Amino acid sequence: MTKTISLVISEAALEKIPVNIIDHPSVTNHARKLGKRPSEILLDRSYHHAAMLSSKLEFAWKRGRPDLVHFALIEALSTPLFFNNLLQVYVSTISNQVVYIGENLRIPKSYPRFEGLMIDLFKKYHIREGKNATLLKLQNNVSLDSLINDTIKPLKVIGFSRTGVQSTPENIISTHISKDSCQCAFIIGGFPSGHFTENTKRLCDYFYSIGNYSLEAHVVIARILYECEKVLSVK
Amino acid sequence: MTKTISLVISEAALEKIPVNIIDHPSVTNHARKLGKRPSEILLDRSYHHAAMLSSKLEFAWKRGRPDLVHFALIEALSTPLFFNNLLQVYVSTISNQVVYIGENLRIPKSYPRFEGLMIDLFKKYHIREGKNATLLKLQNNVSLDSLINDTIKPLKVIGFSRTGVQSTPENIISTHISKDSCQCAFIIGGFPSGHFTENTKRLCDYFYSIGNYSLEAHVVIARILYECEKVLSVK
Repeated sequence: MTKTISLVISEAALEKIPVNIIDHPSVTNHARKLGKRPSEILLDRSYHHAAMLSSKLEFAWKRGRPDLVHFALIEALSTPLFFNNLLQVYVSTISNQVVYIGENLRIPKSYPRFEGLMIDLFKKYHIREGKNATLLKLQNNVSLDSLINDTIKPLKVIGFSRTGVQSTPENIISTHISKDSCQCAFIIGGFPSGHFTENTKRLCDYFYSIGNYSLEAHVVIARILYECEKVLSVK
Repeated sequence: MTKTISLVISEAALEKIPVNIIDHPSVTNHARKLGKRPSEILLDRSYHHAAMLSSKLEFAWKRGRPDLVHFALIEALSTPLFFNNLLQVYVSTISNQVVYIGENLRIPKSYPRFEGLMIDLFKKYHIREGKNATLLKLQNNVSLDSLINDTIKPLKVIGFSRTGVQSTPENIISTHISKDSCQCAFIIGGFPSGHFTENTKRLCDYFYSIGNYSLEAHVVIARILYECEKVLSVK
């Protein structure tokens, strides 16, 4: 079986400090503590809330949550589906950057180490293990549309959102995934609040909500991938 | 329905700096960065590896991973089962301390905030919301045995470990949980490597392994609780 299921953590709240808040004290202080230049560090609402407010950053409510992206990645990369090379994972950020996750990546569980790795990636664009294997790659100016239609080219695109059609992970996966056909791309939001843009919605062939609560991305990922493993008999 | 399912994150790698490494440079430097006294901060292998090695800390391979406890808690506390007050969560640490999780706790997703909350808990032993509601409580000298037999008093204790009987979350939950009877305590290890002590194993009525891989605690938690929600029709 080839690696055919794709997970795209979309409109993800992972980015470097935007240039217009680079001089804000909350940013310069935080950079100093990390021993980095302000231009290198990740936008993080935990530290840069004041800067984000005062600069009236566009779509501020969806931005600056690298911790959510960390959880979503940890969840996906801890599954037997990923260990068996049946899952390809991408992060498509709110500023149209794409992070490609290599199959050998052991994502750091410690947040400061993850943060350090992302800072390194945003600087070097390519993190290798030894001479050949790619652990992480970053590209600028790749829209979600292009990632899906030019790179992943799945048979079906399935989005998850509170505004989708009510269903269950079990029903969704048994409807769309089988051992003979599992070339699906799952689109899951990597932001703290708000909804997908109309553009993201338009890219989805199906759009589902699972359960009555607004679930965290990592919970949706855990449930969907677990149901995929059942259908594909991954152990 | 009363809150009848219990999850105990056991032998958890969450503790304050042990007194015999309090003067080690890796500890004092880290405490300074956090703006805390060395005696107040959490043991964390990411920072205190050298101190843990040089002091020959007992069971060092199982200790100093508050990040794993953070993930396990985030996973459990993000489920509709918890939102519906059907799940009680406990952390039973490797040094016989117990953290009781209140039903209104919104656990910080940002690791530095979680770390700050835990440091506060280890200092004050009780974190309240307003005047009454308990968010977190800490007790010293409570063994896992006493937590289970004197506090939780479940009908069944079900442990999860690589060395258990091979099964699936679906089979385990449909065997042991029903709408009429769900007073189970699940025991899941909150440590990075190694196995449960003989004492923990003895407390389990059933002992299962799910899948062929050594799964992270948060993955086991996600799958078990999701299957509980199915059996209990929680949405």
